[in-house]
Amino acid sequence: MTEVSRVRGVLSPVVTPFDRDLRPDGQRLARHCRWLLDNNVGLAIFGTNSEANSLSVAEKMALLDTLVEAGVPTGRMMPGTGCCSLSDSVELTRHAVDLGCAGVLMLPPFYYKGVADEGLYRNFAEVIEQVGDERLRIYLYHIPPVAQVPISLALIERLLKAYPGTIAGVKDSSGDWGNTNAMLEQFQPQGFDVFAGSETFLLATLRGGGGGCISATANVNPGPIAHLASTWEQPDADAQQAALDAVRSIFQGYVMIPALKAAIGHYTNDAQWNRVRPPLVELDERQRADLISTLDGAGFSMPGLRG
Amino acid sequence: MTEVSRVRGVLSPVVTPFDRDLRPDGQRLARHCRWLLDNNVGLAIFGTNSEANSLSVAEKMALLDTLVEAGVPTGRMMPGTGCCSLSDSVELTRHAVDLGCAGVLMLPPFYYKGVADEGLYRNFAEVIEQVGDERLRIYLYHIPPVAQVPISLALIERLLKAYPGTIAGVKDSSGDWGNTNAMLEQFQPQGFDVFAGSETFLLATLRGGGGGCISATANVNPGPIAHLASTWEQPDADAQQAALDAVRSIFQGYVMIPALKAAIGHYTNDAQWNRVRPPLVELDERQRADLISTLDGAGFSMPGLRG
Repeated sequence: MTEVSRVRGVLSPVVTPFDRDLRPDGQRLARHCRWLLDNNVGLAIFGTNSEANSLSVAEKMALLDTLVEAGVPTGRMMPGTGCCSLSDSVELTRHAVDLGCAGVLMLPPFYYKGVADEGLYRNFAEVIEQVGDERLRIYLYHIPPVAQVPISLALIERLLKAYPGTIAGVKDSSGDWGNTNAMLEQFQPQGFDVFAGSETFLLATLRGGGGGCISATANVNPGPIAHLASTWEQPDADAQQAALDAVRSIFQGYVMIPALKAAIGHYTNDAQWNRVRPPLVELDERQRADLISTLDGAGFSMPGLRG
Repeated sequence: MTEVSRVRGVLSPVVTPFDRDLRPDGQRLARHCRWLLDNNVGLAIFGTNSEANSLSVAEKMALLDTLVEAGVPTGRMMPGTGCCSLSDSVELTRHAVDLGCAGVLMLPPFYYKGVADEGLYRNFAEVIEQVGDERLRIYLYHIPPVAQVPISLALIERLLKAYPGTIAGVKDSSGDWGNTNAMLEQFQPQGFDVFAGSETFLLATLRGGGGGCISATANVNPGPIAHLASTWEQPDADAQQAALDAVRSIFQGYVMIPALKAAIGHYTNDAQWNRVRPPLVELDERQRADLISTLDGAGFSMPGLRG
């Protein structure tokens, strides 16, 4: 098996900027990626909060190419490559592996509901067999509130047994600590890295031996979140966690993706960042003003971020 | 506005055959389409029961091309072209319109849940504007049990007002007759054709002035369903409806897509039809034997269908 550096710590589902024709803007994306890396946050591009499922496979592959050309290191990337269509998942995953991405974050196919674990197993197995590359590292993406298709503990167990090494971990966005804890106890000892779906569970996940978190709000608050990940054994860890929770709770008062973009747009003085693709809708003027005044009031800033 | 013949009657979300490498098999698909047309059933290819969301956009465009080359008339087609990604929806819809399809059946973008009607409106409006072709006829696809993103009456009203002529109708797969009836009362008088999501509501829909139905089981029982659609004012209509319901109830005892394929595979003596793409799973031997013996016992047949 080829040696690949293990992904740990904090990653962000990097928000995707759009131009006035709603086309993805690779240069602005590269700039945001660099700022996240400067803050010690890895790049889970094409996540839920990246509006990845509002992009075509061709658009995602072109964006990846643009990031590589811009010098963003693929060794720090974990692109989302799980699509409804098996053929799409294979094509996008192969492209990510060919470019040297550290791993891929893989949604289950999410159109058909109530499908059997056997069918989900076959989906992941087919992707692995068809990509056929020992460098492939798959992080399963469990996000039942959105995908509405869960990845069960039994499915993980079966996949881990069949493809050890390739099945590398999970992002648990269930919001259910009991489930994250079960994954930590059952699979983390096998080298299967459990990432919490947000920094809300970062400290608890690290204390449970997990890999870290992959969080929407790491787009806007990367430094402090990454700091907790690297100092979680220090006495101030609980206080750090509380401070992270306070910032996150502000963003959770709005629809998350447009709120993240509104904050980035405001602090970089670049209104283009407000744009989202349908079916999402940007924050309206009043919501934006309200969000910014709440953030300012909380002493929030995005140091080093430039438009 | 260009004159386009209005779609009425019965259509089938045509099941998609796969070869041993799980690639779509255009020749078998064309053969099944011809049999459906011989039975007076139109072609809602790329529907839910076509496993359309398990196919890439490129695979769907290639299948459409294959059908056209095989002489299957696009004037009898209503392909599903609504994808999660706006760019995918535009590309596939444009291809369908360019080939002369009678209409397209359009899912809302279905990854993000709880989205505002404003965002769904923008999605459909963007597709219409970007395709920019007056031949485009959109049938909205309301299937909340699967997509988990509903198309509300308020959204239909707004779309109809903004794009009369282009917004041509709906397939209501809510399974909620109250909703279908509200659509019939509110929008059918404006020339917006309401199609029931299965033949269960065919007679009621036609009596309410609707367009017909688009039904999974029209893949296997097309003749009798189409017969009711053309003779629904005859005295035996209720008896016909009851007979259709009896056949449908047999298939509803199994997972629908593999059950449809198992029946086609059995009656054409062509086991390749059993194949489904993950995340679906084919019926096992016992289920298949059970289905066939129940169908045989009910006197079911698929006259004229050949492998």
